[in-house]
Amino acid sequence: MEDIMLDRTAVRNVLDKVKAEGRQALTAPEGKLLCDAYGIKVPQEGVAGNAEEAVKLASGMGFPVVMKIVSPNILHKTEAGGVLVGVKSAEEARAAYDKIIANAKAYKANAQITGVQVQQMLAGGQEVIIGAVTDGSFGKLVAFGLGGVLVEVLKDITFRLAPATRDDALSMLDGIQAAEMLKGVRGGDPVDRDALADMIVSVSQLVNDYPEISELDLNPVFATKSGAIAADVRIVVDYNQPAPRPRPSQGDIVKAMNRIMRPKAVAVIGASAEDGKIGNSVMKNLINGGYKGEIYPIHPKADEILGYKAYRSVKDVAGAIDTAIFAIPAKFVAGALTECGEKGIPGAVLIPSGFAEAGAPELQEEIVQIGRKYNVRLMGPNIYGFYYTPANLCATFCTAYDVKGSAALSSQSGGIGMAIIGFSRSAKMGVSAIVGLGNKSDIDEDDLLAFFEQDEHTSIIAQHCEDLKDGRAFAEAAKRVSKKKPVVVLKAGRTSAGAKAASSHTGALAGNDKIYEDVFKQSGVIRARSLRQLLEFARGIPVLPTPKGENVVIITGAGGSGVLLSDSCVDNGLSLMSMPADLDTAFRKFIPPFGAAGNPVDITGGEPPQTYKNTVKLGLEDDRIHALILGYWHTIVTPPMVFAKLMVEVKQEMAAKGIEKPMVASLAGDVEVEEAAEYLYQHGIPAYAYSTELPVEVLGAKYKWARGAGLL
Amino acid sequence: MEDIMLDRTAVRNVLDKVKAEGRQALTAPEGKLLCDAYGIKVPQEGVAGNAEEAVKLASGMGFPVVMKIVSPNILHKTEAGGVLVGVKSAEEARAAYDKIIANAKAYKANAQITGVQVQQMLAGGQEVIIGAVTDGSFGKLVAFGLGGVLVEVLKDITFRLAPATRDDALSMLDGIQAAEMLKGVRGGDPVDRDALADMIVSVSQLVNDYPEISELDLNPVFATKSGAIAADVRIVVDYNQPAPRPRPSQGDIVKAMNRIMRPKAVAVIGASAEDGKIGNSVMKNLINGGYKGEIYPIHPKADEILGYKAYRSVKDVAGAIDTAIFAIPAKFVAGALTECGEKGIPGAVLIPSGFAEAGAPELQEEIVQIGRKYNVRLMGPNIYGFYYTPANLCATFCTAYDVKGSAALSSQSGGIGMAIIGFSRSAKMGVSAIVGLGNKSDIDEDDLLAFFEQDEHTSIIAQHCEDLKDGRAFAEAAKRVSKKKPVVVLKAGRTSAGAKAASSHTGALAGNDKIYEDVFKQSGVIRARSLRQLLEFARGIPVLPTPKGENVVIITGAGGSGVLLSDSCVDNGLSLMSMPADLDTAFRKFIPPFGAAGNPVDITGGEPPQTYKNTVKLGLEDDRIHALILGYWHTIVTPPMVFAKLMVEVKQEMAAKGIEKPMVASLAGDVEVEEAAEYLYQHGIPAYAYSTELPVEVLGAKYKWARGAGLL
Repeated sequence: MEDIMLDRTAVRNVLDKVKAEGRQALTAPEGKLLCDAYGIKVPQEGVAGNAEEAVKLASGMGFPVVMKIVSPNILHKTEAGGVLVGVKSAEEARAAYDKIIANAKAYKANAQITGVQVQQMLAGGQEVIIGAVTDGSFGKLVAFGLGGVLVEVLKDITFRLAPATRDDALSMLDGIQAAEMLKGVRGGDPVDRDALADMIVSVSQLVNDYPEISELDLNPVFATKSGAIAADVRIVVDYNQPAPRPRPSQGDIVKAMNRIMRPKAVAVIGASAEDGKIGNSVMKNLINGGYKGEIYPIHPKADEILGYKAYRSVKDVAGAIDTAIFAIPAKFVAGALTECGEKGIPGAVLIPSGFAEAGAPELQEEIVQIGRKYNVRLMGPNIYGFYYTPANLCATFCTAYDVKGSAALSSQSGGIGMAIIGFSRSAKMGVSAIVGLGNKSDIDEDDLLAFFEQDEHTSIIAQHCEDLKDGRAFAEAAKRVSKKKPVVVLKAGRTSAGAKAASSHTGALAGNDKIYEDVFKQSGVIRARSLRQLLEFARGIPVLPTPKGENVVIITGAGGSGVLLSDSCVDNGLSLMSMPADLDTAFRKFIPPFGAAGNPVDITGGEPPQTYKNTVKLGLEDDRIHALILGYWHTIVTPPMVFAKLMVEVKQEMAAKGIEKPMVASLAGDVEVEEAAEYLYQHGIPAYAYSTELPVEVLGAKYKWARGAGLL
Repeated sequence: MEDIMLDRTAVRNVLDKVKAEGRQALTAPEGKLLCDAYGIKVPQEGVAGNAEEAVKLASGMGFPVVMKIVSPNILHKTEAGGVLVGVKSAEEARAAYDKIIANAKAYKANAQITGVQVQQMLAGGQEVIIGAVTDGSFGKLVAFGLGGVLVEVLKDITFRLAPATRDDALSMLDGIQAAEMLKGVRGGDPVDRDALADMIVSVSQLVNDYPEISELDLNPVFATKSGAIAADVRIVVDYNQPAPRPRPSQGDIVKAMNRIMRPKAVAVIGASAEDGKIGNSVMKNLINGGYKGEIYPIHPKADEILGYKAYRSVKDVAGAIDTAIFAIPAKFVAGALTECGEKGIPGAVLIPSGFAEAGAPELQEEIVQIGRKYNVRLMGPNIYGFYYTPANLCATFCTAYDVKGSAALSSQSGGIGMAIIGFSRSAKMGVSAIVGLGNKSDIDEDDLLAFFEQDEHTSIIAQHCEDLKDGRAFAEAAKRVSKKKPVVVLKAGRTSAGAKAASSHTGALAGNDKIYEDVFKQSGVIRARSLRQLLEFARGIPVLPTPKGENVVIITGAGGSGVLLSDSCVDNGLSLMSMPADLDTAFRKFIPPFGAAGNPVDITGGEPPQTYKNTVKLGLEDDRIHALILGYWHTIVTPPMVFAKLMVEVKQEMAAKGIEKPMVASLAGDVEVEEAAEYLYQHGIPAYAYSTELPVEVLGAKYKWARGAGLL
């Protein structure tokens, strides 16, 4: 890229001209000019105004050539019969010119015809596509895939946010299913990866610099071992780009979110003494949850509610208020919110429904405007509220929740929020926060990321979402945050049927799932494939220490579990260490002669506790091993709780020596293994009964995070 | 196929000649002859012995032609520079002949050269590959895929057992990822599906008729809208095919298995009165399990064990014995087994380890020979034994198991067997049988299929396996049995790392996973992707009634669950019904105005029990809906157990009217939903807390079975 001279003036002139002429697309020569300005290599070419000019141009660049119609009114040239390839001689060029003009006129009688483009004909190498699109949530994205119909059928294409870094671009070359094609197969040459990466970066910069470029296609690009040339360029423009969603600075977000999530004083607007009312449940949760800050019930008539002095309006409260929790019907929200604004309250938790989700987008727009005017950040509307356990704060009408821990969870949907609460309690997964985002009129996932990033009580962030109102802001925040704390996301509406349901639920248009997939990866986000996975990852990842390398070893009493655990390792991108000879010998010392060393280490089923202990200790002590997966087989010789306690002992003994490695366990046995699994989990070894998949999925997620954060 | 005259004599002559000459491959003309005999279309061609002959042949069939070296010593013609395509004139043909001969000599100086094949040049249409391979477990398989390097890279190929039916062949065309390519993309023509299916069937018959054909490739085959021609044929032979595994008749299997699994009398060889001994555990399990048949302890010295008269040998027992359970060291098994044979006992349950799995294949071979000699079927060795609950029979040293039901499970591995027992007990999944197969020296999955097929206490068969000793026998049995009862299989060693572990565990070579995938599908087998799935499918499938059609409707209180449930429907191949206008109106009558009808039917979160009842009742009553997925959201208005009891009531009310449809439920809420899920499950509605995936996976599995069994 270093030798590129960006000619911005030339690009500006072209785009201004296209705009002035009211066109939606650039002509081929205009496209070439933009490519030239950004150092994107294109074939030699020229535009002929008549047959003789075509012959002259073609002779100059050498036969064979490709000839194509140039007309602002003809976008699909092939369809119009406007492309002839393999033109081999002066005679053929002359005939081709006439034919193309005739075809174009037949296709569209009133088409304005600029001439016929004569272009150096490229061949050989691997055909690829490099392009760019504009996504409603993520903005400009650069795309890469192989050329050809088959790839289209298989939808084998990969995206990154534009502008893309060189590393992003290189990762795209490995990010397609058919990546091996670029490495040279059946004796073919590998492509010039640097040249392709340069071209990807240039395209991503071009669309980033000129937002009016809504779509761009270099198709095909011929990639050979010594370069890459774009044979055709198609650029579509749209001068009516939507205004970006307002985005407070990171500092402002953190400042506001810290007051909202860790308030010194809260007001409950619509507080009630009457059982069954939402405003009553919220008051009780605040009080019974053990919140130690000020609580101000707001009520039009009452003087006192549940022992707390009540006020007519937040404006009647003398002291500062950090968080106003709304428990009043939708139609009264705007008025009360204005008072919050006038009082200088930084955040409103809008529990009421009856806004965009219920066919009243105008009501929602009204409160959004009030929020912006007074700088009140809005959580919701249409939410259950939130929990922040370090402050014993249950700002919700759901049941109080009190199992403290370091996982911060959020959900766009109330139902999923209730599932989070139930699972958390049942699995004894401690949480720092559970937050409902609902309609996301204002506060969304990236605001939460910014808050939890600096919240000392949070070590992992797990989010359920159906859409991202500002995918780009999310991606930027996630990329930063995931370097410090794991970010797990369950994106609902993954599939087309799912996406349809999302749209009827929230009025949000769920994006192309492949875009989410790739951007999440680019941002270091661990993607959960199911609700249960989101929950298990949130529970298990913080429990595990970060691995220091990729070498995973399975130690199992059940050979059958070893096979299934190996399957899971492959499914979850884990590397089974190829066992060095000396280690193999060392393991063999501890196991019966018919046991199998190698990896899995199969200690066989009838072994006493000591065999588990010896092998696991060896696995922890040897520096070349970075993580252990244990497969336990229930026998009378080593009962479940004996195994569990012994493993925890070994773990603690090693930890005392400064050795900490991630360990997970799969327990096969009668019902007693459930108690053993729970004991192991509570002592830092994620363990599952009757499953060879879940423990490996959790370990795999930890590895994904460590890799994304650059720790491996 | 009707107009094909199979010329078996010609084929036999060719293959005999190849054998006589000690060759491993057929020449192109020999390959063409086999194709002709089986009606497989190939291009016009001839072999030229000199340049002038080549010109004459080419002129006769019309230019362009392809010219290829013919030499029994050159298999990879392209590599040898022995192929020239697009030969356009007499002059070019002459030059091509000389060049090919020169290249061939340069490639392999001592190659015997028959001449140069001149072949009609094909082009256009879609290039595909049709082939056949010989698998160690499944035998002859026919394969189909697209042509080209990209498809190789993506490994997009599909297999069926040979001989394949016409339906099998047609299903292969839809069985590749890139199936759309065959339907005509970007305005291209669709291929002639009948012609391709014919060719697949013919290839499968050819390799079936002549087992010495170990590999066959038609590559490429040019498929156009009006036919298919194989441009090149490569046939590899192997005259040393392994002898097929001995296979008793289905009648003999059922007869023996009925005596073994439902014995009137059992002997325990190695019975012991001493606590902690395997022979003691087996005795206790038989007695305490409540087995009502005769029990004969066999012991070298004891007169009586645990109150039962003991015998020195099975031969000392006066009455008939059906099953001999072995609890003695490996080295004594052969002797005792011979006595069983002499006594005429039809089955031996070989608990002892120390055979092939422990590096003693000769010990195993010895007992296999004894079993064959005396017609004693062998279960194991190296197993936990088996349970058959209808007879209260616990023929195992593991804990007794007594939760009766209709699921029959088996496992190759003891550890997985213990996981089955634990899960079954914990989830209250009733079973008819749990069987350990271990080393599978004799009795294997297909023997169990034949038994459970006719066992009136079994309604579903779920099997864990690492390999199939006789994949073809399994596939044939599964195809038959799965028409009547669902067959679920967890194939371990799926992935290459997993397969490696399988091989170190059992000494069995795990096959290519794609072959298992395709053959399972062809045989109507439901494949479980994980241990938990195997268990959940075994539990859930028998609970659900069989759906009468593909229309699935989601009814949910939580919009968020609706989106995730929709995702799961797509993941599991279920069709969300597109809601007819009148039904939409009918649903809307029951839900708030801001709820979303359509599908999912979103009744919204704050609704009373009656709304769930009205909508679910409507869903059950309307004939156009065939299955329901319920999404419950825990609220104070409709608590979990209220919901659960109401749903069971509605289900029973409808059942009384003769309406039975599969229903599953996903429960989002606080921990009380766990009790509700269990209640629902026990009353015929598979339900899961905190998961939107599991209920849909179970419903999806039921659908897979119904489709495979031809019930949909």
